[in-house]
Amino acid sequence: MKIAVFGTGSVGQALAGRLAGLSHEVSMGTRNVQSTIDGGKVNDFLTNNASVTLKTFADAAQGAEMIVLATLGTAAQSSLESAGDIAGKVVLDITNPLDFSKGFPPTLFLSNDTSLGEVLQAKFPSTHIVKSLNTMYNGLMIDPRSLGEDSTVFVSGNDADAKAKVASILKEFGWKDSEILDLGDITTARGTESLLPVWLRIFGATQNGFFNFKVATGK
Amino acid sequence: MKIAVFGTGSVGQALAGRLAGLSHEVSMGTRNVQSTIDGGKVNDFLTNNASVTLKTFADAAQGAEMIVLATLGTAAQSSLESAGDIAGKVVLDITNPLDFSKGFPPTLFLSNDTSLGEVLQAKFPSTHIVKSLNTMYNGLMIDPRSLGEDSTVFVSGNDADAKAKVASILKEFGWKDSEILDLGDITTARGTESLLPVWLRIFGATQNGFFNFKVATGK
Repeated sequence: MKIAVFGTGSVGQALAGRLAGLSHEVSMGTRNVQSTIDGGKVNDFLTNNASVTLKTFADAAQGAEMIVLATLGTAAQSSLESAGDIAGKVVLDITNPLDFSKGFPPTLFLSNDTSLGEVLQAKFPSTHIVKSLNTMYNGLMIDPRSLGEDSTVFVSGNDADAKAKVASILKEFGWKDSEILDLGDITTARGTESLLPVWLRIFGATQNGFFNFKVATGK
Repeated sequence: MKIAVFGTGSVGQALAGRLAGLSHEVSMGTRNVQSTIDGGKVNDFLTNNASVTLKTFADAAQGAEMIVLATLGTAAQSSLESAGDIAGKVVLDITNPLDFSKGFPPTLFLSNDTSLGEVLQAKFPSTHIVKSLNTMYNGLMIDPRSLGEDSTVFVSGNDADAKAKVASILKEFGWKDSEILDLGDITTARGTESLLPVWLRIFGATQNGFFNFKVATGK
């Protein structure tokens, strides 16, 4: 599949590298290619992942079937606004509405009666926003078997075909069918984005981000 | 231990019954004893749990070492205000700030940069608020082994001795040491109260409340 990964930070790099390793045709999208190269944080990644090309958001999105949205939450909307015509595309939205302006742990700049996933779906009604993978460390997103036990990945979105495409990618990453929990439409992203506050507190207490939530049912 | 359970609904009944079965001296606190009896919802419970006495909040709290706060979130503060002198007592706070006024699923009337646990601790500074058990169905609170696999119970509070008393009760209920996760001070209740939105969405998707969150670490 032709996939654009928006965001060049650790999450974007993890996703782009893994997808390229699975033989997808991956471009990495950024606001300003030269500034990103000059920033120096993505160059080693591009050297080590020669099939991944760094492009503007619009150039990366061109012809891509799926956009993996892995920017900061504060940049999610503007990155899609910069992406040109994205009608009909599946957007795998990994972002969280984290506000770091008041120190650590961050608060949420949207929560409770709305979510970033919903806001994006409302702003880009002709795309198919699927919120997933936003509740864990990026190493577990792309290699869930490395945890050594089963855990849960949540999926929220309005379009069944788009969710099926995302589930297909999740399974390529190593997620089992039994670990993928479809919560329903995009409003259920309110629930999964609300996992960030407790994720951050668990990380604070244990000083270890290598964990995931499991919905334990005894089965 | 002499324990007052505030709240006569399903959570209060589950806790009071289990604690009485463990040979604690349990009173159940309510705003108005006669109104509660006239309401009819607690009478079968009292018949089946003859050692549990129904009292006013203040009479139940009198001499109790621990208050188990199992009211609606909207009634949590006012019930403690009605309880007389509660200085020095441990308050095991099971409440969640759920606002049902806008339909289902409820939203939170406090969240993100505060929590009900913190608000109660600030209002009653001479008590020791310990938030725990608020992230699951009441049947699992009091009998975690019934799930058939390990899961997680979170603990938040400022006072180490108070948290140790709560942990002791948790272990009497059947929680393993390895399942009890102390997140830190009472501000960490922001994290666990934020689990309610996703709890409600999982319940909505699966139509089954018999699950619990597990912090899966592979160990």
